[in-house]
Amino acid sequence: MTAQTMSSNWSATVLTLFPEMFPGPLGISLLGKALEKNLWSLDVHDVRDHGLGKHRTVDDTPAGGGPGMVMRADVAAAAIDAVDRKNRPLIYLSPRGVPLTQSRVRALAAGPGAVLLCGRFEGIDQRVIEARQIEEVSLGDFVLAGGEIAAMALIEASVRLIPGVLGDHASTAEESFATGLLEYPHYTRPQMFEDRPIPDVLTGGNHSEISRFRQQQAQALTKERRPDLWTLYEKNKR
Amino acid sequence: MTAQTMSSNWSATVLTLFPEMFPGPLGISLLGKALEKNLWSLDVHDVRDHGLGKHRTVDDTPAGGGPGMVMRADVAAAAIDAVDRKNRPLIYLSPRGVPLTQSRVRALAAGPGAVLLCGRFEGIDQRVIEARQIEEVSLGDFVLAGGEIAAMALIEASVRLIPGVLGDHASTAEESFATGLLEYPHYTRPQMFEDRPIPDVLTGGNHSEISRFRQQQAQALTKERRPDLWTLYEKNKR
Repeated sequence: MTAQTMSSNWSATVLTLFPEMFPGPLGISLLGKALEKNLWSLDVHDVRDHGLGKHRTVDDTPAGGGPGMVMRADVAAAAIDAVDRKNRPLIYLSPRGVPLTQSRVRALAAGPGAVLLCGRFEGIDQRVIEARQIEEVSLGDFVLAGGEIAAMALIEASVRLIPGVLGDHASTAEESFATGLLEYPHYTRPQMFEDRPIPDVLTGGNHSEISRFRQQQAQALTKERRPDLWTLYEKNKR
Repeated sequence: MTAQTMSSNWSATVLTLFPEMFPGPLGISLLGKALEKNLWSLDVHDVRDHGLGKHRTVDDTPAGGGPGMVMRADVAAAAIDAVDRKNRPLIYLSPRGVPLTQSRVRALAAGPGAVLLCGRFEGIDQRVIEARQIEEVSLGDFVLAGGEIAAMALIEASVRLIPGVLGDHASTAEESFATGLLEYPHYTRPQMFEDRPIPDVLTGGNHSEISRFRQQQAQALTKERRPDLWTLYEKNKR
């Protein structure tokens, strides 16, 4: 009964040509335990079930020529239309998409879940993207072999924010991006590692000094490593 | 003998508390086939093997207080020092890192491989990052539950660029980021999907018109969706 009481309705539906990739890493550790506790659910559909003819063809050569194969609009549409959307956003993982951010992840985690279409080959026919109003989301400015690992990243980032998944022992309030800054560095025992001590302030017990030190460290790191985030942070402070 | 002749020496070593997550999706489809053909290799080490005491403890509470647990510097260092680096970069996947880009991926693919340290908990002790000169790399501005799925993404992005992995049927020359633009949209049969035809120019057979159309589409998409990339593209053109 506890598991029932704790269950959320957050669900991910994945449309893929490689259903055997799932749950994969999502079935292990934190996410796997949360899956067992029904804190989220996952269902995976094989796009090839909607393939055409006896070979269940899902792709064809690109109109206008060029290398590679393109997923057919009719096949992708059939796979999408077979899913009960339940008000969930329909997302195609693609390097052409809008980059995923933590604020988008928070919105996804607070919602009912997501339906995720994973591409392979060169991409999918543009017409199904338009006709089904599919949102294109990118992990970052690099290219993967398919959308599956990107879908796993999006799911993991979202599910860890669902209440009950991380537990009391962790926090998402001070982590990177929550404050507009990269997170400050961490230290733990031993007191001395090789010739490097833990910074004195952290073991001094003065909480406001600790807090000030961490804030300074987070600011310095962000400024050095992510001038883009730093500019945004400075602007939002004003 | 063919597989031997084709073998590259690209290798990934992953240090993780969840070795059972690997190869996972990397053992399937394109990457899995390339792994079988020895076009790349993967070895996975359990950080817990270097844990302390009878419970093989790997973490402790953060110095200065706060939620969560931090991976100990001495444990992480022992796991790192047990690996033969073979001139490969040592990368810690972390949202605090420098964002991964396709040009970094190309450099990684052209090199000997990568040693990837996956965090869990709040993070790892800053002193081992400094003492072992670990490079911090981020997938994007969102937070995962651990570095494993990020490591998979980095490996997949790199390995697909190793000669022989994608085969002749695909190309990486025109894809997103290769030209500084997002990739143009794709179309394939059927000629008519619902009420949407393939754009006439793509079926007209005039290759320079097709090329111009695709370039215009790629520019328009980049301008609309990624003003940051567009600004960079315009600057580099001059």
